[in-house]
Amino acid sequence: MANLGFIGLGAMGGRVTKRLLDAGHTVTGYNRSKSKAQWLLDAGMRWGETPRAVAEVADVTFTMVTNTSALHEVVGGPDGVLAGLGNGKIYIDMSTVSPNASRRLATQVAAKGGHMLDVPVSGSVITLEQGNLSLMVGGEEAIFEQVKPILLDIGPKVNYVGKNGQAVLMKVAINLNLQVQIMAFYEGLLLAEKGGVPRETALEVMLNSVIASPSLKYRTPFILQPPDEAWFNVDMMQKDMLLALEMGRELNVPLPTVAISNEYLTSARAMGLAKEDFAVVFKVLAKMAGLDV
Amino acid sequence: MANLGFIGLGAMGGRVTKRLLDAGHTVTGYNRSKSKAQWLLDAGMRWGETPRAVAEVADVTFTMVTNTSALHEVVGGPDGVLAGLGNGKIYIDMSTVSPNASRRLATQVAAKGGHMLDVPVSGSVITLEQGNLSLMVGGEEAIFEQVKPILLDIGPKVNYVGKNGQAVLMKVAINLNLQVQIMAFYEGLLLAEKGGVPRETALEVMLNSVIASPSLKYRTPFILQPPDEAWFNVDMMQKDMLLALEMGRELNVPLPTVAISNEYLTSARAMGLAKEDFAVVFKVLAKMAGLDV
Amino acid sequence: MANLGFIGLGAMGGRVTKRLLDAGHTVTGYNRSKSKAQWLLDAGMRWGETPRAVAEVADVTFTMVTNTSALHEVVGGPDGVLAGLGNGKIYIDMSTVSPNASRRLATQVAAKGGHMLDVPVSGSVITLEQGNLSLMVGGEEAIFEQVKPILLDIGPKVNYVGKNGQAVLMKVAINLNLQVQIMAFYEGLLLAEKGGVPRETALEVMLNSVIASPSLKYRTPFILQPPDEAWFNVDMMQKDMLLALEMGRELNVPLPTVAISNEYLTSARAMGLAKEDFAVVFKVLAKMAGLDV
Amino acid sequence: MANLGFIGLGAMGGRVTKRLLDAGHTVTGYNRSKSKAQWLLDAGMRWGETPRAVAEVADVTFTMVTNTSALHEVVGGPDGVLAGLGNGKIYIDMSTVSPNASRRLATQVAAKGGHMLDVPVSGSVITLEQGNLSLMVGGEEAIFEQVKPILLDIGPKVNYVGKNGQAVLMKVAINLNLQVQIMAFYEGLLLAEKGGVPRETALEVMLNSVIASPSLKYRTPFILQPPDEAWFNVDMMQKDMLLALEMGRELNVPLPTVAISNEYLTSARAMGLAKEDFAVVFKVLAKMAGLDV
Repeated sequence: MANLGFIGLGAMGGRVTKRLLDAGHTVTGYNRSKSKAQWLLDAGMRWGETPRAVAEVADVTFTMVTNTSALHEVVGGPDGVLAGLGNGKIYIDMSTVSPNASRRLATQVAAKGGHMLDVPVSGSVITLEQGNLSLMVGGEEAIFEQVKPILLDIGPKVNYVGKNGQAVLMKVAINLNLQVQIMAFYEGLLLAEKGGVPRETALEVMLNSVIASPSLKYRTPFILQPPDEAWFNVDMMQKDMLLALEMGRELNVPLPTVAISNEYLTSARAMGLAKEDFAVVFKVLAKMAGLDV
Repeated sequence: MANLGFIGLGAMGGRVTKRLLDAGHTVTGYNRSKSKAQWLLDAGMRWGETPRAVAEVADVTFTMVTNTSALHEVVGGPDGVLAGLGNGKIYIDMSTVSPNASRRLATQVAAKGGHMLDVPVSGSVITLEQGNLSLMVGGEEAIFEQVKPILLDIGPKVNYVGKNGQAVLMKVAINLNLQVQIMAFYEGLLLAEKGGVPRETALEVMLNSVIASPSLKYRTPFILQPPDEAWFNVDMMQKDMLLALEMGRELNVPLPTVAISNEYLTSARAMGLAKEDFAVVFKVLAKMAGLDV
Repeated sequence: MANLGFIGLGAMGGRVTKRLLDAGHTVTGYNRSKSKAQWLLDAGMRWGETPRAVAEVADVTFTMVTNTSALHEVVGGPDGVLAGLGNGKIYIDMSTVSPNASRRLATQVAAKGGHMLDVPVSGSVITLEQGNLSLMVGGEEAIFEQVKPILLDIGPKVNYVGKNGQAVLMKVAINLNLQVQIMAFYEGLLLAEKGGVPRETALEVMLNSVIASPSLKYRTPFILQPPDEAWFNVDMMQKDMLLALEMGRELNVPLPTVAISNEYLTSARAMGLAKEDFAVVFKVLAKMAGLDV
Repeated sequence: MANLGFIGLGAMGGRVTKRLLDAGHTVTGYNRSKSKAQWLLDAGMRWGETPRAVAEVADVTFTMVTNTSALHEVVGGPDGVLAGLGNGKIYIDMSTVSPNASRRLATQVAAKGGHMLDVPVSGSVITLEQGNLSLMVGGEEAIFEQVKPILLDIGPKVNYVGKNGQAVLMKVAINLNLQVQIMAFYEGLLLAEKGGVPRETALEVMLNSVIASPSLKYRTPFILQPPDEAWFNVDMMQKDMLLALEMGRELNVPLPTVAISNEYLTSARAMGLAKEDFAVVFKVLAKMAGLDV
């Protein structure tokens, strides 16, 4: 069993840590708010006072935070992960951040004698709990082979994608589909509904058909019954869409359906829905179709 | 076992007929080109000289043709289905046609004392052969209950949707997703590819993720290896997109991702790709991204 | 001076007729509602009991109606223009109709020994009154040369475009710009306004800049002060956008900005604004930006 | 006559300086490459060794550079404009930069006891030479009144817009129209052309119509005869579109026609056209329509 560190114990990171503990690994954890990590300490996790402290004691350190600037906070500075990384140590970032930021970080890690992998995940809290999370890996292949057994303890599908930064790029390439798929789904749903098919029936039939991706199956029922807490809110979804558009410009790939779908997230924010699950974009489209929602 | 008629024995219609024969029903068939139906005659299907003749001998007559005008051809005129329909007969159209045309036809059938259902399917030749086809039913619910066992011999998922025309509307609402989903998928794929991930790897990872709907799983591998024959070509896909846009205007539902995706089918046609499977829209997007394809 | 006929004496057609009378021509007119034509009868116009009667007495007969089906009404049937056209007569349609319908009509006119030109106009009631209307001409060039002096009495810019149907195509090609230009204008205006610039100031500055086309200058002030009566309402604008999209599909020309702009007209209709001047699309965009309008 | 400084003597900045000299003002200039400024030195301009030196000798200092980062270069550091600004001095930036960057700079200028205005222009080299440039002014109104006579020497239309940063926002709001207008224009042009109207004729008729904004009049003839040197290339246009989209997200204004048009600039870059005048986007649309260009 391995000696691991984990920084960022939120909804996703906390549950990943729990799986690693359950698999028998030693895990030293750090979170900005310690109280939110109590359940993990109760489950046997050790506490590190700073990201640096975690990186110093662990052989393999993970981070999983909200965005590029949150990552810079836990990685840089005198108390950051980088300060604690030495020769031969492995650092794995599971956040969805800008591919360029990820690549730059890998260079800094290498300069300290360490090795970095970017290992974003595809799936949600539910997929994770069901043990179905899929992981994508960017970085040196030899390092990947070394940590592969640990990654398989997190989820059953682990795909080596390529060089540093390419796994987060892959993640962005997947996530842009989430928003476009849900837009098209709602366009169809509203068509059926305004044509006289009850919303529940239309939803059921569409989710029984060949277009029903797992992400649509999880998320579209939220229009009938919103979740208590957003899984992935409008702000977060738009962050990923903007990463996609930014990469599209850099790599010269036009993204027409992404560009147009992104504007509906802007409308959702304009209507005060920024913190709701992005399934709420239904309300924007319904309003455009003249419905009171 | 029932006494059935089937008009339109193409790639889909022929295979549906085969399933009905295999289930033990008597089927009288008609097709414009008789030679294409030889395999069904060999399997025990009887031959009707005209659509009218089929409708006269059968208790339940099916049609499954390419579009609204093909439907008018087999249904109208002295040799058409309508001429053969009498009191209490049931007529089931499985084509994807304009919801309005379907509704008008149902009125004509009722005037002859018959009953019409619109029963479009969601799925392809493959789904059908695997016994996974899903059927949507529009029309009187009592008539639906009467033929339900027959429909279950075609596919395992049969959803009653509502009044005449609402099942084809539902079908259109589903199909618009096919094209938008494949656009977004390719946008992501090209992003990954131009960022350095090999096309095969990117494809595999994306098809392993939560965005992989059954239709994407079947179809996107065509960019590596096109099918011998198009399952659903650009012209057919655009026909369905136009039905969606037409209904969107009639029912006042804006369809932004459909509208923009449809323009790429126009480009595919402009580039001479009208008769290839609509998966070929990849070539349009790749060209827009500066790739030689 | 020529012996003319004019059918369709609405807002535009009536004013064109007045100019022709003012120029000294003899005009026999017809309108569905005779009372609306009283001011022209007072100005010396003669009355024809049917479109056919007009065509029989005039050497050159004009029509100017709302859409393709209104054109078919005044042209076809026993009392229609076609029935009154004989050898050597000239028929000029000034309506904006489908290029294909226009071409078919020209063939019918030729079969009667007559000659047809399609002569749509670019401009509004105001442009017309200011004597600035621009006319586009499709049909045989020799016939055009023959009636050119009459057309110059209507407006100062007369452009020969090409064969029958090409002038209405040209008109559609121009009109699609109206809607896209106003969309982009409003997007910019809302950006300035939500950034703190007063709406009046933003409007003035934009109309002082290089993007201010004549049509934007006439129309965008309507968001401050709507016109008493729509010049060109949402339904009419969408009719032209649909003609453009229809031609785009037929000629294989993708129209991305048209396709997306058209969906906002659909939203305007969904919000009950179908009969207001299309400048009202501002309300749709403003609502999407979270403003109460 | 005033004692002025001017930094950034490129295509636009050089010509503005020339107008100021012609009006009788004293101008001390600075440019990265002195040789490009020789014609202005010959016309009586004085030379400043650094941006700071210019700001020290002038009462009113102008900058006009390519983008936000170029602005930071001439403004910051020991040799920058800021270092040379003291009590009561006025600093006018004529560049199109991010409204936020402009606002931050104004705060820094105020901290030194100076006053900043953002004064972007609408128009091109041609408009400027014809004496038709329009200027927008953001900042304190009293300072604007003070320099208004000088600004009128540059162009005849000077609009006070509001607080610091609001004039550049206004500029961005105008410029997004340039790209959307040209897209729609080309969509119409290609429709006419593929329908049989010669390109020259279609262009002429469209430029004779109510949609012909000054910017379309200057620029669309480039598709027949490209300019020797790009006035405003694809990269520069996309920079402005991205500023618009960035502000749209910040201010919650959806920009559908901008978002979709921007993707065609990305395609232009993917096709190797980044340095050509943005009128070249015609080639992208033409290729999408199946034409060889």
